[in-house]
Amino acid sequence: MRIRLDLSYDGTDFNGWATQPTLRTVQSVLEDALSTTLRLPVRVVCAGRTDTGVHARGQVVHLDVEPDVLAAAAGRRPVSAPESLARRLNGILPPDVRVRRAVEAPPGFDARFSATWRRYAYRIADRADLVDPLTRRHVLAWPRALDVDAMNEASAPLVGLQDFAAFCKRREGATTVRTLLELSWSRGEAGLLEGRVVADAFCHSMVRSLVGCLLAVGEGRREPAWAAGILAGRVRDPAVVVVRPHGLTLEEVGYPEGDELAAQAARARNPRSPIP
Amino acid sequence: MRIRLDLSYDGTDFNGWATQPTLRTVQSVLEDALSTTLRLPVRVVCAGRTDTGVHARGQVVHLDVEPDVLAAAAGRRPVSAPESLARRLNGILPPDVRVRRAVEAPPGFDARFSATWRRYAYRIADRADLVDPLTRRHVLAWPRALDVDAMNEASAPLVGLQDFAAFCKRREGATTVRTLLELSWSRGEAGLLEGRVVADAFCHSMVRSLVGCLLAVGEGRREPAWAAGILAGRVRDPAVVVVRPHGLTLEEVGYPEGDELAAQAARARNPRSPIP
Repeated sequence: MRIRLDLSYDGTDFNGWATQPTLRTVQSVLEDALSTTLRLPVRVVCAGRTDTGVHARGQVVHLDVEPDVLAAAAGRRPVSAPESLARRLNGILPPDVRVRRAVEAPPGFDARFSATWRRYAYRIADRADLVDPLTRRHVLAWPRALDVDAMNEASAPLVGLQDFAAFCKRREGATTVRTLLELSWSRGEAGLLEGRVVADAFCHSMVRSLVGCLLAVGEGRREPAWAAGILAGRVRDPAVVVVRPHGLTLEEVGYPEGDELAAQAARARNPRSPIP
Repeated sequence: MRIRLDLSYDGTDFNGWATQPTLRTVQSVLEDALSTTLRLPVRVVCAGRTDTGVHARGQVVHLDVEPDVLAAAAGRRPVSAPESLARRLNGILPPDVRVRRAVEAPPGFDARFSATWRRYAYRIADRADLVDPLTRRHVLAWPRALDVDAMNEASAPLVGLQDFAAFCKRREGATTVRTLLELSWSRGEAGLLEGRVVADAFCHSMVRSLVGCLLAVGEGRREPAWAAGILAGRVRDPAVVVVRPHGLTLEEVGYPEGDELAAQAARARNPRSPIP
């Protein structure tokens, strides 16, 4: 049977999601806890492979486990076996990773390939009185005031199906064509600036490059039209700085319902290039 | 001249506010930074002496400094001398303390004695899916669901001018009579439970004892009327647990205006016992 886990983590002390020899990563810490609980080696698949220092409130992973193995680990508790698994994991996991929910996944579900969108938030304190030591691990302190309207004006033309090569670290064979569903900026409670970035998927360092570009517009060093120009160039521009990771949080992953879970997974595993 | 500083800090790695030999405290870290900036020894007075592990978003302190000393430290910047002081302090202070604002204090202002109320928040995640690694340093994770209505019912009779000896660590000569202006519970964004506690002043460990008492009511171990019974006993009851400090944050300090600043300070320095 397939289990879906919803995770949150503070990325500060992790070297990102993906397992790497000798480094502390979310995947390796989670897989170790699962292997201890289920008493056999476990591999997990995640929806969004976050970079070093990036946080998550809505990471989604799946794992496959034999029902009898899960039942044995659950013991005779008056809750479902996945719920019991979540409790036991939270008892073992360090406090910077929490399992928010564990359920049996519906048929056709794949944490990575069934996902239709990922939503990230980038949070910025751009005035001294907004800088809060209690949120300093997940909010970027920016020394100059930012113009939200200019940032939104610059963001709008980037939305849609585009080649984001200008904002991606090049990787052999990987497409840089993505559908950016939303890119918008607003002031939240107490004036904190929050960027909302939603896409079908992201290439490497794409959100942080987009935010870096828009910060230059927000503080008035560049005109709003500059962002669309960078995009049209389709090559990485050294004037675009990849902003620091700690302001970035993976907030939510979207999945379709019913038969669409398997259909979306089949499409995502064999993508046709959407721009000829 | 007298300077008012508004501070926030993450209390996790501090041994509370007040200077203690060899321990890292907020007061000593702040006074060291001030002494470095102003090039002479500086003492500060604060509105609320927070305990070890307690945070602040709205701590207020004052210090007295000769205008020429302040001007020398400010240099020739195009901002006011206090504003320049805040910038320089934030450049020296560690990231777990920030100066949110620095202004020249109005006549009669005393950070401690002019204050008419202090407001604290106590934050609790009482469901597994509310436990967020990004807020774990200032939100208490509680393993059982809490009943907000029962906690509010228990809280209401505690409000007013009362002898809080049952909720205070006894200290020679210190009064335990306080005016509790507000004690209420609500669910904030995303379901987090937040207690709001406002009083003219607090005796030692009073907020954490009140919260500990109300947690017993919230999880159904005690009836709401139990809290008023404890108060009426006027002695510490071992059944009341002092809750952990890290959920507690000093949010705001209230001051009167104009001549009342000096009048309030005079009253607070020479209090008459308000209950005969």
